[in-house]
Formats: sequence, C-alpha cells, structure tokens
Amino acid sequence: MCFQEHKNLRLKIAQLLVIRASAHLYDTQREYPQWELTNCQLQKYLGQGVGGVVLFGGTSKELTLRCENLKRWARYPLLLCADIEEGLGQRFNGGTWLLPPIAISQLFEVDPDRAIKFAERYGICIGKQARCCGLNWVLAPVCDVNTNPLNPVINVRAWGEDSDVVSTLACAFHRGLDSQGVLSCAKHFPGHGDTEDDSHLDLPQLDHNLTRLQSVELVPFQAAIAAGVSSVMTGHLLLSNIDSSRPATLSKKVVTQLLRKQLGFDGLVVTDALLMQAISKQYGSGEAAVLAFEAGADLILMPANINDAINALVDAFCSGRIPLKRLDESLHRREVAVAKIQNKPIQTYQNKFDDIEEIESQEDHSFANELIEISLKIHNPGPIRPCSFGVNLIRIDGVLPCSILTHNSPAIIAPEEAGFKTVIYHQNGVSPWQKDEISPLALDRLGKGPVLLQLFARGNPFCGNSYVKEPWLAALKQLQKMQILAGLVVYGSPYLWDQLRDELENKIPAAYTPGQMPLAQSHVLASLLPDSQEYKLIDSLSNKEFTN
Amino acid sequence: MCFQEHKNLRLKIAQLLVIRASAHLYDTQREYPQWELTNCQLQKYLGQGVGGVVLFGGTSKELTLRCENLKRWARYPLLLCADIEEGLGQRFNGGTWLLPPIAISQLFEVDPDRAIKFAERYGICIGKQARCCGLNWVLAPVCDVNTNPLNPVINVRAWGEDSDVVSTLACAFHRGLDSQGVLSCAKHFPGHGDTEDDSHLDLPQLDHNLTRLQSVELVPFQAAIAAGVSSVMTGHLLLSNIDSSRPATLSKKVVTQLLRKQLGFDGLVVTDALLMQAISKQYGSGEAAVLAFEAGADLILMPANINDAINALVDAFCSGRIPLKRLDESLHRREVAVAKIQNKPIQTYQNKFDDIEEIESQEDHSFANELIEISLKIHNPGPIRPCSFGVNLIRIDGVLPCSILTHNSPAIIAPEEAGFKTVIYHQNGVSPWQKDEISPLALDRLGKGPVLLQLFARGNPFCGNSYVKEPWLAALKQLQKMQILAGLVVYGSPYLWDQLRDELENKIPAAYTPGQMPLAQSHVLASLLPDSQEYKLIDSLSNKEFTN
Repeated sequence: MCFQEHKNLRLKIAQLLVIRASAHLYDTQREYPQWELTNCQLQKYLGQGVGGVVLFGGTSKELTLRCENLKRWARYPLLLCADIEEGLGQRFNGGTWLLPPIAISQLFEVDPDRAIKFAERYGICIGKQARCCGLNWVLAPVCDVNTNPLNPVINVRAWGEDSDVVSTLACAFHRGLDSQGVLSCAKHFPGHGDTEDDSHLDLPQLDHNLTRLQSVELVPFQAAIAAGVSSVMTGHLLLSNIDSSRPATLSKKVVTQLLRKQLGFDGLVVTDALLMQAISKQYGSGEAAVLAFEAGADLILMPANINDAINALVDAFCSGRIPLKRLDESLHRREVAVAKIQNKPIQTYQNKFDDIEEIESQEDHSFANELIEISLKIHNPGPIRPCSFGVNLIRIDGVLPCSILTHNSPAIIAPEEAGFKTVIYHQNGVSPWQKDEISPLALDRLGKGPVLLQLFARGNPFCGNSYVKEPWLAALKQLQKMQILAGLVVYGSPYLWDQLRDELENKIPAAYTPGQMPLAQSHVLASLLPDSQEYKLIDSLSNKEFTN
Repeated sequence: MCFQEHKNLRLKIAQLLVIRASAHLYDTQREYPQWELTNCQLQKYLGQGVGGVVLFGGTSKELTLRCENLKRWARYPLLLCADIEEGLGQRFNGGTWLLPPIAISQLFEVDPDRAIKFAERYGICIGKQARCCGLNWVLAPVCDVNTNPLNPVINVRAWGEDSDVVSTLACAFHRGLDSQGVLSCAKHFPGHGDTEDDSHLDLPQLDHNLTRLQSVELVPFQAAIAAGVSSVMTGHLLLSNIDSSRPATLSKKVVTQLLRKQLGFDGLVVTDALLMQAISKQYGSGEAAVLAFEAGADLILMPANINDAINALVDAFCSGRIPLKRLDESLHRREVAVAKIQNKPIQTYQNKFDDIEEIESQEDHSFANELIEISLKIHNPGPIRPCSFGVNLIRIDGVLPCSILTHNSPAIIAPEEAGFKTVIYHQNGVSPWQKDEISPLALDRLGKGPVLLQLFARGNPFCGNSYVKEPWLAALKQLQKMQILAGLVVYGSPYLWDQLRDELENKIPAAYTPGQMPLAQSHVLASLLPDSQEYKLIDSLSNKEFTN
C-alpha cells in the first residue's frame, strides 16, 4: 500500500471514531481532564478526519459555541452527540432537566395514553434543545428493561420494568426525538436491565438464554428498530449463554448474528465507551477497537487511546484481518445517518452570547413541572413541624461537585427556614454509622433534635448502588422508635421508597419523587413543609422572588 | 419640584449606586439569586441611571460578555468592579488565581526588594486581566494591618501585620494596578485588621483611640492616598472611641472628619456592601444609604433594596436633609474617575467565544507558580509512605459548592494514588469529634489506618474563623500519640500552621502554603508524596498529561 493509500485509509477509519470533549471552552475548565481532550488535541484529531464527538459539561450556550468550533475544525461533517437521556439540563446548565423515564413508566400504570403522550413530549423537548445547541445525535432511548431492582446503572433511567411498556414508551420517545431532526440511539444492546454490576467498574454477566432474551430484553430493541431508530449502542456485558468469551460489544455472535441478522438492523451500531473498565481492564484500546469492529460495530466510542485505536484498525484492514468491504459498509451507514440530519432544516439558536434569552421555553418548563407534579407520591403531607434545633440529614452520593445540590437548593434552604440544620452524608464524608444493627445511626454525630431524612439515592455511574449497602431501613426504625423522625423524602429510587414507606408510621410526613434536581426538591418540600413555605419555594425557582 | 426635576434628581442619584450581578449570563445560573439581580432587573436599573455594577461568579469569557451587556444597557458610562483581591481567577474561572497577599508579606521579611517587585507584578496581573474582561475598577488593595491573628475576615488577605510593610506593599500593588488603567480601592477604612467578628454577620467593635489609629491603622491608607489610590472603601466596624453611635461606614466623624479632612482624601469614597448584616441588622436600605451619604460617602454599594435606597436619597435631597451640593460633589468625583479610565487605551480581549485562547498568559502562570514556590514552607519533606488503607482527612469550610476542591483536585487525587481514602469534614458534614478533650477525633468515623491531615483554614466571609473553634491541635497530638499521623498540610492560615508545627514530631512530613487553590495543592503534595508523584502532579496542571 502506498503512502497516499495508507493516508486515505486512515482518514476513512478516523471517521468511525467518536471522541470525548468538554463543552467548556477552556482546557482548564475541563471537569475530567483525563478523558476530555484539549482544544489542541481536538483540532488535531478532527483535522485527521475523526467523525464524531461526544460532549459533556458546561452550559447550553457554551455547548452551542463548542459545536461551532468543532464543526469548523472538522474535515468531515460531524456527528455531535451527548448522553442527555433526561434532558439537555442533565448535562448542560440552562437546558431543561426532566425527571428520569421511570416517572413516565409509573404514570403508564394508571394512564397509558397520557404516559405515551408524555414520552413523546419528552423526546421533543430533548430533541429540540439538542438541535438548537448544535447536537445532531442524542444517545437515547435506553431500551433496557429494568427487571432487577438492584440494577446499579439502569434503574430509574429505564422506561419501565415490563418489556411491552418499555417498547411503547421508548418508541414514543423516539418519535418525539425524530420529529426534531436528531438521530436517536437504542441502548444498551442486547439489554442491560437485569444486571447487578456497574459496567463502569466491572463486566456484568447475564446468564439468560436466547428464548428469555427474545421474550424480554430484545423486545424494546425490536420495537425501536421497527420504529426506525437511527443507531443501536452495544452494552458491556457478558452473555454467558450466547458468547461466553467476549462481552456483547466485542461479540460477533451478539452484534452480527443477533442484532444485524436476527433483528435485521441495518443502521449505525456504536459501542458504549471503550474506556469503561468493563472493557479497558481486559483489552487495550487498539484490540478493543478491532474486536468491536470485527464484531459488527460501525462507530467506536471513546477509546482510552485514540491513536492506538486508529493504528490497530489500519493494521487490521491492511493485513486483511478485517475485509475492506466492512469499512465501506460502515462508512456508508454513517453517510446515510449524516444525510438524514443534514436534510432536516435547523432551528437555529441565537449564537450571540450577548443575547440573554434562555434555551428553555415556557412550554418546556411547564412540562418539567407537570411531570414532577404527577409523579409526586405523598405518604403523609404533614406538615413537618418547624423546630429550632432540628437536623436535616441529607444522604447523597458525592459533593465534589454536586449538580443537584448547592447551598441554595430547596433541599437545604427550605428545611433551614423551618429550623433544621443541614448535615450532609456523602461517600467521602465522615461516617454517620455506629456498630449497632438495631440503631445504626450514631446520633451524637448529627446534633440533637428531630431528624428530617432526605435520601438522594439512585444508581449512578461509578457509584453503583452505594446506598443499598447503607442501613437506611434500620435507621428509619431507630428514629421512629426514638420518636425523632420529623419526616422522610426519597429522591430517585422507587425501590428504596417502597421499602422505607412500608415501615413508616402513619403520622410521619413523607414523600417520594423520582427526580433529584432542584425543581423536584422544591415540589416535594412544598408539600411537606408548612404552607407559608410553599409559595416561596415554588416561586424561587421561577426567579420571581426578587421583588427589589 | 416639578416632575422633570424629580426625574433628573433620580437619574443623578442612581449613578451613585453600585448593584450586584452574576457574570453568568442566564438568570438560572446565578449562584446567589437572593443578591444577584435578574437580567430584567439589571436592564431596568441601568436604564434608570444606575452607575455601577459589582460582578461575581462565572468564567472570564462570560464576564467579558456580561460587561458588554451591561454597558449596552446602561444610560451612563459604567463603573464595573469586582472583588478580585487575589486574582481574576479568585472569582472568575479561567483567570489567574494568585496566593493571598500574606505570601508576599512573608517574603518581605527575607527579601524586601523582591517582595515589592512581586506586589507590583501582582497588581499588573490583576489589572491587566480585569481590564481585558471589561472591568475598570478593582476592589483592592486591602489596606488593613492584620494585627490580630484571630481576625476572621482579613487574615491572609492583608499585606502584612506591620503598618509600614502593608503601606509599602499595598502601594506597590497599587502601582501595578494603576499601570493597567483600572481604578483601585483602598479598604476597609479606617482599618479592619484588629477585629475578631465577621462583619458579614455582626458589627465588629474597635476600641482604639485616634493616636493608636494614626500609628497603625491609618498609615497604609495615608500611603495609598499619597500614591494616588482612586477610591477608599469604608468598613462596617464601630470605632467606639471615635464615634460610639455609628459604624464607620455611616459615621461623619470617620468619613468626613478623618478620611476627607484629616487625611485629605478627595477621591471616591464607597461603602462596603450595605446588605452585610453588620449594617442591615440595624438599618433599612433607605436609611443606611442616606446615613452613608450624609457621612461623606460618594458611592453606595449593594443596598439590600435598591429602590428603597434611591427613594430615601431622593427624599433626603428634596427635604434638604442633605444639601444638593453634596450630590454634585459626589457626581463630580465619579466623573473624574470615569474620565481617568476612559482616557486609558483599552487592551481588548478577543470577544469571540469561538476563540479558545485563555486569558492567563504564560507569564501570569509562571508568576503564580513562582509565588507558590517561594512561599512553600516544608517542615519535613517526607516522603509520606504510600499505604493501601490510609485516611486522607480533609478539613474545609464548605462543599456546596467548593471552588478549591473537586474530585480532580491534587489534595484528593494525589493522596488517593498513594492509598489514602478521602474523608472530607466540612461545616455541614457529620461530626468527626467525640467528647474527649485529649482525644477529640472519633477515629471510628474516619476509617482505620494512618491519617494524612489536610487543613484548609483561613478566614472566609460568612464562615469567620470556624476552624479556630475546632480542636485541631489536640487532634494532632492524639494522632501522634497513637503513631498514626502520616502527614500534615495547612492551606491558608499561617497562625494555625505555626501553632501546629510547634507540636509536630520531627519525623512527620508536613508543609504549609498560604494558598488553597489546586496549583498550591499540587506544589505542596509534590514535596510531600513520593518522587514518582511529583511529575504527574505538577504536570497535570499544565495540561500536558494527556499524551493520547
């Protein structure tokens, strides 16, 4: 192969990579410098033909400008994607942050028609804001059926626990997304709902046979494919009964046999991030990229080492390990996808930073509010009695930083106004536990007084289900027995809520919301704290409180 | 007075107000919505003639665009200021964040010439970056002489503990700032260095007589005035021997008699923020503004209620309580200051967001580094022995959010790499203390293993000297006695460091830096942790670690 041919091959292969960038514009602002490329590196790789970027962090305005930067640096039309399953605001400050999909699956049980409309509206909200910022590919819907309550990474991200419900809602979501001219992505093939390990840390194993998969896990993927989903993301999990040697992402049996042939999917197949430890613990970047491509993937997402991935793929094609025909097929699928989004007219978002208009429309804000209202579960409205020496014990995964909690969050300021002093327990905090199974909370570490317990608990990447290991049920009983439980709020996991609610004494004010964001905090606490707080709380989030 | 006259009077008065805004561009991004005006309110007040804005939060790019917004909305040329005593990066992400001035006063003891050069360079760095972003007024230098080690708000912000040193360095700083065409501000008149209360929470009292003030507190202000400082900020403190009824900010005896007449200052006098509780606990916004103006101030900073402040001043002039001549004098001083900055050529900072060049020059970065290097105090270099089950106990004021500590900060990742698990103690955390004066640390709450103690402790607004009330000295002795003290780092207070160092056993690796920012953490830990860490640490901050 001559130099020019080699160079052309590299350019083609590079198009199939999706690399990671922060939407923050400065290198020094990157939140994950170990994973997010510098501007200099981005310019280099995009100039070398890299065809996709996945974006994290920053504001919606920064994202808009970042997308423009990237397009200008790129040699080819770019796929610009983000993991915004729960709204642009989940990752990018200023966008709408919606409750997780589980809220809509809960609604489905009582009002399926409304749930379907909500799922579509959910897709429209995300698709519209994504496109306004310059993204053209949303890494959703999650098509996993959350059959395992202990699932540490899917959990509230799933559209339900039943494959038909997930199918219906994921397809409705897809319709909404599609109507806004952005590509969608069904994930994590062949189904990550029945796992108990966090694939960010380890390779989860699934022992189901094909019959079971066909009756549960594959159903939503089939429905999404039939509905025209643009791409499918493979999961990092070992299907011991299908391919006991390779994780799904690297398995020809899973990607080519099952997804391409049996399910007949001819759109883009993208791997989940190859730098996740489920893969990177065992495979180098080069080998992982080649195996994924051999298995049947088109796009390689976030290899730990980009050069290694490209070089290994070049070698694999040069040596004939992978036929060049496969490269052309993947490039063709990419072109089809790019053509699809380029044909859609773009709703531009004002790019001038001196324009202070926010990306969230009043409509989107109302939708976010409505979703919170309908999914609020109030066990006992209270109100919680104000108390000048109460303890507001907040449990949260981490605080450095914490996107859901600041000194101004309703979960902190509302109880403070009712006299409850904030005590935050997090994974890197001082332990609140003592060695006593019946009374696990060391109360002397918290301060005296009635305790308002606020538990932010859901599966989170890298944290897994850390809250499951904490004895909250026993702590609840302990506080009730001592008659110092002032109230309970669970933000996130419906499983934890169900478990605790069953033990609650009737008179205890308590409520649940699937969401953790400030807007959800505000609604929950408005229903639990004395009336006088209500107006202030809700209103503080509409930015009308300042009557200066 | 006819309507038109009344309207003109309002417009004039409004020019003398300085209101608060976030540099973040969206209302929803404001970190302190109770104090920071919405865009709508800003447009309204600037349209009504308000003449100054003090900015907080956001990135240096956002600040640049925000300043442009504000100028466009304003009726009159604006004074745009910020509290960036320790570098633009202290408040605005992306700017240079320097060690606090105390570092330079420590250097003065051993090398006065170099310290003076550093102080001037310090002023140049801040002035240049401020001006590049559109600011024209820097609220520095602090001219307080920190004669009281327990001072909760001045502390490391002071240019020293001796009035001559403070005079020399504050003037050198002023020269640097002035050379960049921005206005300066000597604060907090008549001297806040010998107080033990936090004026953000309470009104501190100072019992010194005039003779003492003239020999200590007033000296740096006289020097700064002689050097041509543009403005003086009054402090919220009660000088019981000068005016026992009114805090300095509202005292004619202090502002007019002492500052204007005795010290002969004819530049702008600005109040400290009137919404601080030292004032707002006792005076309404209107009365505080009128009293401040009557006392001799020109500019009214951050009244809790802007309309009340303007209305009360209008009434005071209309009723003749304050002669109109005083208004003209203040407006004239404002015009002189505005003319001064308008005559200086502006070094423009590229305003296009698609330009990814950072505001911090290599020169500035080197200066920040050099300052850290020269002020590092290593008691024993160690190295700290790696340990697979150590505890990295970090003490910090607050975490929601925390500008100095994230999951990627050297103070967290470096010890983690050496096997020390992070445990963070903060004001809203679970208590690490037990009732035992000799052994105050409840070790079972932290985890087993040797303890690396990292104390981030300095006076911080609203927190005061919270660390002073914590038994760190006893804790240190306890850990040493049990032979589980792996190392000690103090970030900030030299007083705490001196106190702890005197109790340290010789072999314990320990070091001190006046700074708390990541760059300071990196330097300290590189000197304490095993060699292999050094390169990684320093380099990770130069963004060269990613060799992809």
